[in-house]
Amino acid sequence: MMPAPTYRDILAARPAVYRHLERTPLHEYSLLSEQLGARVFVKHENHHAVRVFKVRGGVYLASTLGEEERAAGLYSASTGNHGQSIAFGGRVTGTPVTIAVPEGANPSKVASMRSLGAEVVFHGPDFDAAREWIEREAERAGARFVGPADPELICGVGTYAIEILEDLPDVDTIIVPVGAGSGACGVCLVAKTVDPKIEVIGVQAERAPTQQRTWKAGRPLLGPMETRAEGLATRVPFENTQRIMRHPTLGLDDFVLVSEEAMENAIRLYLEAIHEVAEHAGAAPLAAAIDLRERLAGRKVVLVLSGGNISSADLRRIVA
Amino acid sequence: MMPAPTYRDILAARPAVYRHLERTPLHEYSLLSEQLGARVFVKHENHHAVRVFKVRGGVYLASTLGEEERAAGLYSASTGNHGQSIAFGGRVTGTPVTIAVPEGANPSKVASMRSLGAEVVFHGPDFDAAREWIEREAERAGARFVGPADPELICGVGTYAIEILEDLPDVDTIIVPVGAGSGACGVCLVAKTVDPKIEVIGVQAERAPTQQRTWKAGRPLLGPMETRAEGLATRVPFENTQRIMRHPTLGLDDFVLVSEEAMENAIRLYLEAIHEVAEHAGAAPLAAAIDLRERLAGRKVVLVLSGGNISSADLRRIVA
Repeated sequence: MMPAPTYRDILAARPAVYRHLERTPLHEYSLLSEQLGARVFVKHENHHAVRVFKVRGGVYLASTLGEEERAAGLYSASTGNHGQSIAFGGRVTGTPVTIAVPEGANPSKVASMRSLGAEVVFHGPDFDAAREWIEREAERAGARFVGPADPELICGVGTYAIEILEDLPDVDTIIVPVGAGSGACGVCLVAKTVDPKIEVIGVQAERAPTQQRTWKAGRPLLGPMETRAEGLATRVPFENTQRIMRHPTLGLDDFVLVSEEAMENAIRLYLEAIHEVAEHAGAAPLAAAIDLRERLAGRKVVLVLSGGNISSADLRRIVA
Repeated sequence: MMPAPTYRDILAARPAVYRHLERTPLHEYSLLSEQLGARVFVKHENHHAVRVFKVRGGVYLASTLGEEERAAGLYSASTGNHGQSIAFGGRVTGTPVTIAVPEGANPSKVASMRSLGAEVVFHGPDFDAAREWIEREAERAGARFVGPADPELICGVGTYAIEILEDLPDVDTIIVPVGAGSGACGVCLVAKTVDPKIEVIGVQAERAPTQQRTWKAGRPLLGPMETRAEGLATRVPFENTQRIMRHPTLGLDDFVLVSEEAMENAIRLYLEAIHEVAEHAGAAPLAAAIDLRERLAGRKVVLVLSGGNISSADLRRIVA
């Protein structure tokens, strides 16, 4: 694994990312701008074929493997976006991918990973059991185990932050959801290296505030993990992403929490005002912007719509 | 106005289009491919900031104006996507735009056109009254009246067809919705010039089959106009687009009709399988592909997801 990444490492990830993925648009939406009293731009990471920013990381990580590593394949654990992203990266680079999921994992997500060519193995009663098992399997096979925020993933996903600056060089504030923290770190490394005055705000859920509490306290603090926002649900703080998010010059300016209700209102607003499907984590930056309305007034604000993989049941409930 | 456009005219529209708009992605979706027994690719014309392919035409038409024409402004009539697209084209090129709508027009669409900088004028009890009035106003002002399928619009929207061929040179079939016919003509001119063996299938609604009946009969035939699919609702056949769609070597291979129910099932499938919002016209090609399942088996099929501007009320009803 590579050491902590820099802006230059993110630049270096671009050719591999663009070999298999397209730039995503940054659109200004006047209906959102009027509603928020700011100039609101949305970064459409939900426009990837697998609907989530993480796919950039999966593609880049897979592209860095040597011939032997590629032959040994990638091993990881996930029930959602992370697994799909590694599967996609494996498919486009010809790397076998094995994903462990707990018994009883969501069948539609399993189907989605399989349709991307990954081998999905059910193991153990919960996510941690599946993860520990597959990590040992990887070691035994002499293959790469991929964690949720490995440095190559940060480099890959950071390419979207460079696109934001290319499209809106005078951005004032970028609001980004935080799960493991790869997206937030990518945004911090890019925006703060270019100009520390660009404000970067992280968002987690009130019902899963582990990373936020740890960031505030400067030491590992656990919280509950009861959010519906899969992409924000972090059981333990991640040491490598916390180090970047708390960095004195490159770190986040602020880290806020949003309620479940605020996220679902934001999902509804995205759907009705701009006809876009956001999952809970993807809508969290819009929810945060509504909460921070006064502070953002008149600023050029980018909301990272990080993913669109919401379940049909949730979508139906929220729209109704 | 220019004469009937050719492939070369579409190529010539590209620089102006890409000055203000980005390419849209063509994604293959394995879940749709499995369901249809074909390789299914979706052309995401719903990813434009104004959510509809027509914006390419608005941008190109506005870019072709000379200094005097620009100063005189553009005049048109529309209650929906056409008006927003002309408004967008006017805004990015600094051209004043006036759009006539009937009294009682949908306030959210009026708001959307206004937020793009267009002057919206209410006139008359129905669309035709508004259109006839604004056409006279344009003449009086010595300004350009823009109809729904003017040649420059065909050239502008045809740029998406070139993108389809760039991304999938071995496409077998392209299915495209037909309202006035600018999109279908753009696809025909591009695909059939490159290789007449590329199959192009047009789609209209069973409840608004005017263009389809006219195409089949070879002479103007009116039908009912009762569809919810605004983008397919054509009161009269358009002579200039019929000429291209019926051209012996460049025309459509087939022109099919879909039911309201089939379109709404397709809207639901897009939402649940790939998390994309389609309006009725935008979902019509998927509805047609489901109807044509056997004929398309094993082929590489592109569905043009032409637009995503569905009303919140329709979306809520369809999801529920």
